[in-house]
Amino acid sequence: MDWVLIKDVKDYNDREVTLKGWVYNKRSSGKIWFLILRDGTGIIQGVVLKNEVSEEVFNIKDELTQESSVIVKGLIHADRRSPGGYEIVVRDIKVVQIATDYPIALKDHGVEFLMDNRHLWLRSRKQWAILRIRHTVYYAITEYLNNNGFIRFDSPLLTPNACEGTTTLFTVPYFDLGNAYLSQSGQLYLEAGIMSLGRVYDFGPVFRAEKSKTRKHLTEFWMMDAEAAYVEHDENLKIQEELIRFVIRSVLEKNATELEVLERDIEQLKKADAPFKRMTHKEAIEYLRSRGSDISDKSDLGAKDEVMLTEGSDVPVFIEKWPKEIKAFYMKRDKDNPDLVLGADLIAPEGFGEIIGGSQREDDHDLLYQRMVAEDMPLDEYQWFLDLRKYGSVPHSGFGVGLERLVQWMSGVEQIRESIPFARTIYRLRP
Amino acid sequence: MDWVLIKDVKDYNDREVTLKGWVYNKRSSGKIWFLILRDGTGIIQGVVLKNEVSEEVFNIKDELTQESSVIVKGLIHADRRSPGGYEIVVRDIKVVQIATDYPIALKDHGVEFLMDNRHLWLRSRKQWAILRIRHTVYYAITEYLNNNGFIRFDSPLLTPNACEGTTTLFTVPYFDLGNAYLSQSGQLYLEAGIMSLGRVYDFGPVFRAEKSKTRKHLTEFWMMDAEAAYVEHDENLKIQEELIRFVIRSVLEKNATELEVLERDIEQLKKADAPFKRMTHKEAIEYLRSRGSDISDKSDLGAKDEVMLTEGSDVPVFIEKWPKEIKAFYMKRDKDNPDLVLGADLIAPEGFGEIIGGSQREDDHDLLYQRMVAEDMPLDEYQWFLDLRKYGSVPHSGFGVGLERLVQWMSGVEQIRESIPFARTIYRLRP
Repeated sequence: MDWVLIKDVKDYNDREVTLKGWVYNKRSSGKIWFLILRDGTGIIQGVVLKNEVSEEVFNIKDELTQESSVIVKGLIHADRRSPGGYEIVVRDIKVVQIATDYPIALKDHGVEFLMDNRHLWLRSRKQWAILRIRHTVYYAITEYLNNNGFIRFDSPLLTPNACEGTTTLFTVPYFDLGNAYLSQSGQLYLEAGIMSLGRVYDFGPVFRAEKSKTRKHLTEFWMMDAEAAYVEHDENLKIQEELIRFVIRSVLEKNATELEVLERDIEQLKKADAPFKRMTHKEAIEYLRSRGSDISDKSDLGAKDEVMLTEGSDVPVFIEKWPKEIKAFYMKRDKDNPDLVLGADLIAPEGFGEIIGGSQREDDHDLLYQRMVAEDMPLDEYQWFLDLRKYGSVPHSGFGVGLERLVQWMSGVEQIRESIPFARTIYRLRP
Repeated sequence: MDWVLIKDVKDYNDREVTLKGWVYNKRSSGKIWFLILRDGTGIIQGVVLKNEVSEEVFNIKDELTQESSVIVKGLIHADRRSPGGYEIVVRDIKVVQIATDYPIALKDHGVEFLMDNRHLWLRSRKQWAILRIRHTVYYAITEYLNNNGFIRFDSPLLTPNACEGTTTLFTVPYFDLGNAYLSQSGQLYLEAGIMSLGRVYDFGPVFRAEKSKTRKHLTEFWMMDAEAAYVEHDENLKIQEELIRFVIRSVLEKNATELEVLERDIEQLKKADAPFKRMTHKEAIEYLRSRGSDISDKSDLGAKDEVMLTEGSDVPVFIEKWPKEIKAFYMKRDKDNPDLVLGADLIAPEGFGEIIGGSQREDDHDLLYQRMVAEDMPLDEYQWFLDLRKYGSVPHSGFGVGLERLVQWMSGVEQIRESIPFARTIYRLRP
């Protein structure tokens, strides 16, 4: 490589380098002008002095527009006043392309306009910051899992059956084999994986065709599903808590610049890295009622309920031990109360909603079989899943983390569509 | 966690621990018997001595079958003769479940039987080893990229258009927006990503509905696509070579046990970690003809050609500078010969075929536009892609790595279906 990335300029103090990037901004002041250059890895101020460059280079400033691509030569110079701590004293500027009429100016645009131009909107400082935080969150999750004995086990996306419900599936005609469906979760496959590898996870896109939902819901989003043999309910929550706290610390450590760009209140993130709260579903219902809700005993929790339950809490809250009627067939029953399942949802603070759903799984063949019959499931399709309870069944647990929700929380971003490069919703498939 | 994973027993020498896993095998010899226990993280020999355990525990051996789940207590003991260097002197065995009539015995089974029972076949030692190598390959790729300034940028899978051709697409009815198609490559989206982040990659499943192909071709497989701003053809090949050599070293370093299980010739892998060869497409055609082939000038290379081209080579071979007619519209032309494109395929040695395809991309708006018109592409759908050449266009390049092919090569496994947890082919969607 015959040029330097802006993230690396600290290694080139007082040396002449070439930078390659785009014009973010420029400011003029008589015999000096400033070029704000970005290259994707960072941003740096270029200082152009009239008597240190050719007239041609000095006058380029009149030509340069936002997003024009340029190659800049100059001397790296530590300067505490500069954002990033370094500037470049420019010797030469070569224009690669002048951008004419770039449609996203610094003024405000409507959301639909921005989403129609998502391929360009991505370049804005805020979107850049969110995507870099997404990178950190992704690898913090995998780093924690890899360090704790989990092996990546990519579940298939083309599946003959549905993990949770059948009304929200995307259908894919599949050769002579009828329809395939796009997976909503790799969990069932992971349960086969643990019998080989002990602890496994997948981390890929999943799909929900939620016809009743709004433009706020993604139809394609990223999910990490983890599953571990011999892990029971309490240990399952412990792993989740450690994982999320590791993610928080990683973002605080690696994304100080990005959090600043987003004006994220990092004190809130720091406070969330403390022991999480636990509450049973029953306690949650009682609390909501004490706050004036008329929610019934066996109700699922809505977005507003989740906000109320975490109000005033700096840390995420586990809601555990749910009524069996409102949770999936594969969840193990609580031995102290068989009307409850050993499932838990984890609700983020600051109103960011559910970030994890998980449970201990039913490991008894006959109990699982009976429930599948009761729910009228196609037993043929699930014979392989029942097999896992026949040949060396073990207690086991798992959970799923929604990547975009976690990115939203870390970034402090209100709209989920900004937490993924190209959001897909019921109304949007383009660009 | 109140038990120890087998991978960690080295930290517990001469200490009493609990292990939780499955019976892999057992051998008896009068007053002593041996339990081979696996827990997914490793395998260990348990020594059961008649006068050190209760009669009940000693007699469990008659009951235990392959794949039964058991919890074993005992003393970890370093023993150089043991596989893995440690054994456990058993104090107690608790049966979790006896596996009855486990269908996959140690005898040979046909491929279709094994694929029908993939959920169980995964447990076999060889499949376990391949999946662990897959984990290493995945993270070696991301580690190299992360260390070299690339940011993860997850491309959408639900797309309105096709990256390469339209005849091999899976179709997904998408609400009121007509059909969506499952992505074959995230490349075009990554080209938007580099304008924000400089260097990006995605790494997820992609889909090809190759109706004409056989059960040897996966319809769903994993691809890493990388893209970098300001990187031109030669630098593009350099990045690919460094990446692949890093993967080889990582597998050799982290998967010694797994490579041994697979009886992989590691000398071949070591030899492949050396400067790669380069050959133009023209030279390749000439070489094939010198070996008796009647291949024509503008031919693509088939599997047999690839084998011939790498025969006798210890290292992978780049085939570069292809006739423009047989490569995609977005590839940049060679300035020394506009009939050629600056694309390259990387062919693995030992007959493992193509592992990378890549190119420098056309960055000139008008040239790209003309080619899209000539190929009768729907310009409306690709306006956003053309936009990238209007607002600060830069030279850029990228490439795509097929994960399963790379896993096959590292593992030395002949069948691609064994390189992914649950293979999908034209004839198989289950389990």
